[in-house]
Amino acid sequence: MSPPPDSPLAVSLGDPAGIGPEVIAKCWDNRSGFNLPPFVAIGDPRSIAAVWDGPIEIIADPSQADSAFDYGLPLIQLAAAQADLPGHPSVAGAHTSLDSLEIAVGLARSGSASAVVTGPVAKEQLYAIGFQHPGQTEFVAERCGVAPGNVVMMLAAPTLRTVPVTTHLPVRDVPHRLTSALIESRGRATLRGLQRNFGIAEPRLAVSGLNPHSGEGGALGREELEIIAPAIAALASEGWLVTGPHPADTMFHSAARAHYDAALCMYHDQALIPVKALHFEEAVNVTLGLPIVRTAPDHGTAFDIAGQDRADPRPMAAAIRMAAECAALRSEAS
Amino acid sequence: MSPPPDSPLAVSLGDPAGIGPEVIAKCWDNRSGFNLPPFVAIGDPRSIAAVWDGPIEIIADPSQADSAFDYGLPLIQLAAAQADLPGHPSVAGAHTSLDSLEIAVGLARSGSASAVVTGPVAKEQLYAIGFQHPGQTEFVAERCGVAPGNVVMMLAAPTLRTVPVTTHLPVRDVPHRLTSALIESRGRATLRGLQRNFGIAEPRLAVSGLNPHSGEGGALGREELEIIAPAIAALASEGWLVTGPHPADTMFHSAARAHYDAALCMYHDQALIPVKALHFEEAVNVTLGLPIVRTAPDHGTAFDIAGQDRADPRPMAAAIRMAAECAALRSEAS
Repeated sequence: MSPPPDSPLAVSLGDPAGIGPEVIAKCWDNRSGFNLPPFVAIGDPRSIAAVWDGPIEIIADPSQADSAFDYGLPLIQLAAAQADLPGHPSVAGAHTSLDSLEIAVGLARSGSASAVVTGPVAKEQLYAIGFQHPGQTEFVAERCGVAPGNVVMMLAAPTLRTVPVTTHLPVRDVPHRLTSALIESRGRATLRGLQRNFGIAEPRLAVSGLNPHSGEGGALGREELEIIAPAIAALASEGWLVTGPHPADTMFHSAARAHYDAALCMYHDQALIPVKALHFEEAVNVTLGLPIVRTAPDHGTAFDIAGQDRADPRPMAAAIRMAAECAALRSEAS
Repeated sequence: MSPPPDSPLAVSLGDPAGIGPEVIAKCWDNRSGFNLPPFVAIGDPRSIAAVWDGPIEIIADPSQADSAFDYGLPLIQLAAAQADLPGHPSVAGAHTSLDSLEIAVGLARSGSASAVVTGPVAKEQLYAIGFQHPGQTEFVAERCGVAPGNVVMMLAAPTLRTVPVTTHLPVRDVPHRLTSALIESRGRATLRGLQRNFGIAEPRLAVSGLNPHSGEGGALGREELEIIAPAIAALASEGWLVTGPHPADTMFHSAARAHYDAALCMYHDQALIPVKALHFEEAVNVTLGLPIVRTAPDHGTAFDIAGQDRADPRPMAAAIRMAAECAALRSEAS
């Protein structure tokens, strides 16, 4: 079922008025410095031409990407209604970004592309055109026939991978949303993802506590005792290598990181603060639990700097590189 | 009022059964590698001799520390009731650690010592002998005649300083405990501390949000709009350089850290995760708001490894070095 690893990666441009087209073009420009495999961009070529004067190779099929890649940025062109100016998003642009995502996912599902890398989209504009999903992740999950609850978002960087159990929730709601079942399910999806996407046969998962000092035996909160520890025990009873709950402030230094392959964190900032503090330019969002490999740079459309040649392509390059690595590992395993 | 900067630092050994004596002796051993100024330890010499076979120079007065420092670890001896074995804390040891702390603070208050560095104590044993304070910080504040609410704990490391607005609270209680008045008062104490202890004439404070993406305009929580932003506005109206609320996950990478001198964080782990992820071996606890300089290594007694020659002296060395730097800056300013 896995595509051959020599298929190109499909990269959706994201919102045409955001920094997606610019960083993707810069990745092609610096493809050897970034050590990037062939990829094909999917979107409106005008959104690239507006911010970049390098060569674009319009192709009809991903199989042409490999030979085109030496001459220009391979691109599968969308019949887009209109071109947006950088920094000025529109609903037409949202349609373009959604079409681009849909085609990229389709190519990966059919095996014509080895993985999908998604450029940043504008949620507000997507909602305006009737987009029903919280984000691209859930859309990709649906297109792959996977329930959104079964996919997890991992932040992956060179020396640290984290997964938040809860994501976009106010802090005051986090304690009420945490359940042993949710932690178990996120933990299981993370462990399986470490096996499938990262080729780790016996993955080690470190689970954080919720409270300071991991609750200090109950004195600083009881979620560790009542919710988190039972989930860890359940996962361990299935044979997984799981430790914790660990005090979150002492689990992310280099000596601690050597003891696990991923950290399962209780909330958004607990997972994202350490990854971005250590590896801001290389933090990649990896969706686990899908039949395809999907990564994304961990930044938004950045409309405020779009079109000014200021966008940093390193996160997109890291996302492309990681997608290729995960695709190769899956291909080997299958 | 400030002591002369050539007074030695007073270092309390902390609990005699913990790793305090070992890491302090190791600091003296490696005083030139660590670039440490003269300091005098205060405690029971038997607790050092139990874990270290280097020379101890018993002195009666801190003024003798400078000349003794070349020959051995200068120590002001306590008349301790009994010696504890490493790793086996007792109430007698708690008395010793408290006496040691009391003397160290007294020496700094009188100007005989330029600053206080405190070794780790065992709270459980201290409570057993009637100690009424949550920790050493509050005890030091009381001995200095400062209300505990007016001192703040800063975590300081080479490239990042953070201050938690709330400290040892379960996460579920944090949103209820945050008030604009509390954030303002912690912010003011932090800004003044940056001036007094770190010699920064116009300190810049970055204030974090509580929720993911700093609440995303209210969609992910309203504390930013209702509590944090008004506190920032109040501090700014007093002329302080204060920014925020910033999304916590994007404020700790190196480019972001260049824009502020300290980050004011809403809760324990938000402040401690980034400092310890980046600088685990050099994280120093600095108490701001006192008439004296007080620092401490950010670790506990570690009874489980005491007496095994395994304790890492780098955090204690960083605490001693930072105490000396802060004392010198205060002395210059006075």
